[in-house]
Amino acid sequence: MPTAPVNSASSQLSEHRRQVAINGVTITPVAFADPPLLNTVGVHEPYALRAIVQVHTDAGISGLGETYGDAGHIARLRLAAEAVVGVDPFNINALRARIARALATDTIEGGHGMSGMVTGSSTSDRVLSPFDVAALDIQGKLLCVPVSDLLGGAVRDSVDFSGYLFYKWAGHPGRPDDGWGAALDPEGIVEQARRMVDGYGFTALKLKAGVFAPDREADAVEALRAEFPDLPLRIDPNGAWSVDTSVRIGRRLEGVLEYLEDPTPGIEGMAAVRRQVDLPLATNMCVVSFADLPPAISAGAIDVVLSDHHFWGGLRRSQHLGGIAETFGLGLSMHSNSHLGISLAAMVHLASATPNLDYACDTHWPWKDPDEDVVAAGVLEIVDGAVAVPTAPGLGVELDEGRLESLHRQYLDSGLRERDDTGYMRRFEPAFDPTSPRW
Amino acid sequence: MPTAPVNSASSQLSEHRRQVAINGVTITPVAFADPPLLNTVGVHEPYALRAIVQVHTDAGISGLGETYGDAGHIARLRLAAEAVVGVDPFNINALRARIARALATDTIEGGHGMSGMVTGSSTSDRVLSPFDVAALDIQGKLLCVPVSDLLGGAVRDSVDFSGYLFYKWAGHPGRPDDGWGAALDPEGIVEQARRMVDGYGFTALKLKAGVFAPDREADAVEALRAEFPDLPLRIDPNGAWSVDTSVRIGRRLEGVLEYLEDPTPGIEGMAAVRRQVDLPLATNMCVVSFADLPPAISAGAIDVVLSDHHFWGGLRRSQHLGGIAETFGLGLSMHSNSHLGISLAAMVHLASATPNLDYACDTHWPWKDPDEDVVAAGVLEIVDGAVAVPTAPGLGVELDEGRLESLHRQYLDSGLRERDDTGYMRRFEPAFDPTSPRW
Ligand SMILES: [Mg+2]
Ligand SMILES: [Mg+2]
Repeated sequence: MPTAPVNSASSQLSEHRRQVAINGVTITPVAFADPPLLNTVGVHEPYALRAIVQVHTDAGISGLGETYGDAGHIARLRLAAEAVVGVDPFNINALRARIARALATDTIEGGHGMSGMVTGSSTSDRVLSPFDVAALDIQGKLLCVPVSDLLGGAVRDSVDFSGYLFYKWAGHPGRPDDGWGAALDPEGIVEQARRMVDGYGFTALKLKAGVFAPDREADAVEALRAEFPDLPLRIDPNGAWSVDTSVRIGRRLEGVLEYLEDPTPGIEGMAAVRRQVDLPLATNMCVVSFADLPPAISAGAIDVVLSDHHFWGGLRRSQHLGGIAETFGLGLSMHSNSHLGISLAAMVHLASATPNLDYACDTHWPWKDPDEDVVAAGVLEIVDGAVAVPTAPGLGVELDEGRLESLHRQYLDSGLRERDDTGYMRRFEPAFDPTSPRW
Repeated sequence: MPTAPVNSASSQLSEHRRQVAINGVTITPVAFADPPLLNTVGVHEPYALRAIVQVHTDAGISGLGETYGDAGHIARLRLAAEAVVGVDPFNINALRARIARALATDTIEGGHGMSGMVTGSSTSDRVLSPFDVAALDIQGKLLCVPVSDLLGGAVRDSVDFSGYLFYKWAGHPGRPDDGWGAALDPEGIVEQARRMVDGYGFTALKLKAGVFAPDREADAVEALRAEFPDLPLRIDPNGAWSVDTSVRIGRRLEGVLEYLEDPTPGIEGMAAVRRQVDLPLATNMCVVSFADLPPAISAGAIDVVLSDHHFWGGLRRSQHLGGIAETFGLGLSMHSNSHLGISLAAMVHLASATPNLDYACDTHWPWKDPDEDVVAAGVLEIVDGAVAVPTAPGLGVELDEGRLESLHRQYLDSGLRERDDTGYMRRFEPAFDPTSPRW
């Protein structure tokens, strides 16, 4: 058993903690290359947008957060950035109160980060999130402990992720193919899955659906089942199916799926499906804020909630979600949008320290060029389908100023200011209609 | 704005945290003098029992916890103490898992710490509690931060408490009067309240009821209202009233009470009262574990839940309760049993860092001889009805070995091994019947 004290603080037991305060925030929008991944509201644009939040303190330590890059969201982040100056980074409760106050009179439109998807996520929780993450990063760095320690301690050394399969074009129109190839039918999906499994060792697979006719997408799930008889499988049509279609496809896939994710929109629709299908229903659409939990639980609409610290108010509030899930007998998984390394580190710390977050988490990580990030390379890697929990202080990842500058320049050059999967799709298919449910 | 770093850890950013592990636990039962406070199951014995839990680490730092002193509970604490050796004190998740495993085959009876009161609190959460508190105390001492920082940050510098009024005898039979005098009617209660308010500055008052006929107790509430027109008032008969009596007395006290606490037993009974009375209903009896929350919320049985880290699994899990209360629109207050300074410090840190725990908390503190404690004097004091949040590392209280030894000797000499309010009452009133509801 090791015997050394954690750090020299142990010799200062009689001292009270010295004060430390946030003295500035840097918000940097960035863009990174993204393949033409298809979903029910359109197709991913050539660049995904994120905002990198650096929270600075008068102790000379800064913390990192990462969030959506939509212009409306960035405008709100700037309101929050002003409001948190002077706050103690150990006081996440105060951060939350200050940010809620700063946003109380907010009239900014849009910026929920979900492209054309329907979402009722909480604006103040979305804005709080990167500040919560950065504050925990600061705490960890000042105290010389990893963020997982500040969240109750890691119960796993590494966090499992699912291989996230997408229908896709071979490349963005007018640009070179991206190397993944097209995936527009069951064979293409199975081939993509094979590459995901061989390359990353994923032990669960999720198919983003809502793109083609439901039976064609169910064909793909069955093809995956045939090819990977032992891997848990999920399908997520993002609410593109009617209740009747969800019931029909759900019944077809009973015994095949680990869970069926957001087959149809809304709590009532999900509850209607749930009554008729013997499959766990998961969501990151009908339950996206604490306000959604009472009606969804009361309706019996869902079995599994996909957490996402980006819209559940950061890591500490995501753990409250975990407590609620445990209390009300809901499973807990994790949602992902296209993201960089700061978010991946935060996701891994959260999942490691949330015992009931035991489904393999979603991540878009393999779809990103490994050379495009804002953190220094080498810490985060998917091996055997899992990411090792960083053990260095704070999040355990370091900002690479050169990479940040390069992705910021890419943001400026891209001309993109809002994620708009539907608008991009309409450039190639002018009649494209993202209405849900579609089938 | 202060500019100094928190501690020298900031110079060690590249280092990973050194390992630290629990290498032993000391459990010391103690007894402290307690006045003859009356409740619906009997009367407090001459000594209240507690167990003091010291968790030791190979870093040379120990942490403190305090919990019930019943023999059955202490036997379980000893099982847990063995199970946690080797665990990292930063890993409260691991503590919880180890303790749950150690108790899985537990056949020990009793020991829930609530005397004859009905309780369905979770055994593993009761046992986990002092280990969670001690682990946070260790973390805070090692990191040189107060526990409130580890719980998300204090949103208040001091925590309000209510003056806890009891019907009581002038002294224990056969012993000298205790100086508080008897309180057996409205006049006695008002006199006691005056002393509480003058001596401690309480800004809210709670009457422990279920002792005399309900109308006589409602008379006391109305006498308090006349004497203290501005103070929020509560009454708690510990489930001694039938639904009909609860409705009748509740209606009589509409507009008088801040909340009505546990008028009648059980979720169904409380829900029936709630439908007929226009008063918030509070509980520390029908919702005492996470398992009670779904049925109580579904039944609409309660408006306010009284947290108590001693049976809600410690401070971190009590914060999950806070998150659930916020999510489901429940108010949050705090319950107390007779306790010493370690518990008071833990209660204050928890309440300071739980924004929605904004009712004045219960405490038995004034009923305790100030010279009888296990912590060094001087940190904890009720001024203007509130206790300042300690700012020293960890809980901010230090064990006084001499005081601990003295209260342990008192425990040995007392001969008491279980709290038994009913048995003690029957020594003087052999026909005493604690059955609830009684009226
Ligand atoms: Mg989804
Ligand atoms: Mg009570």
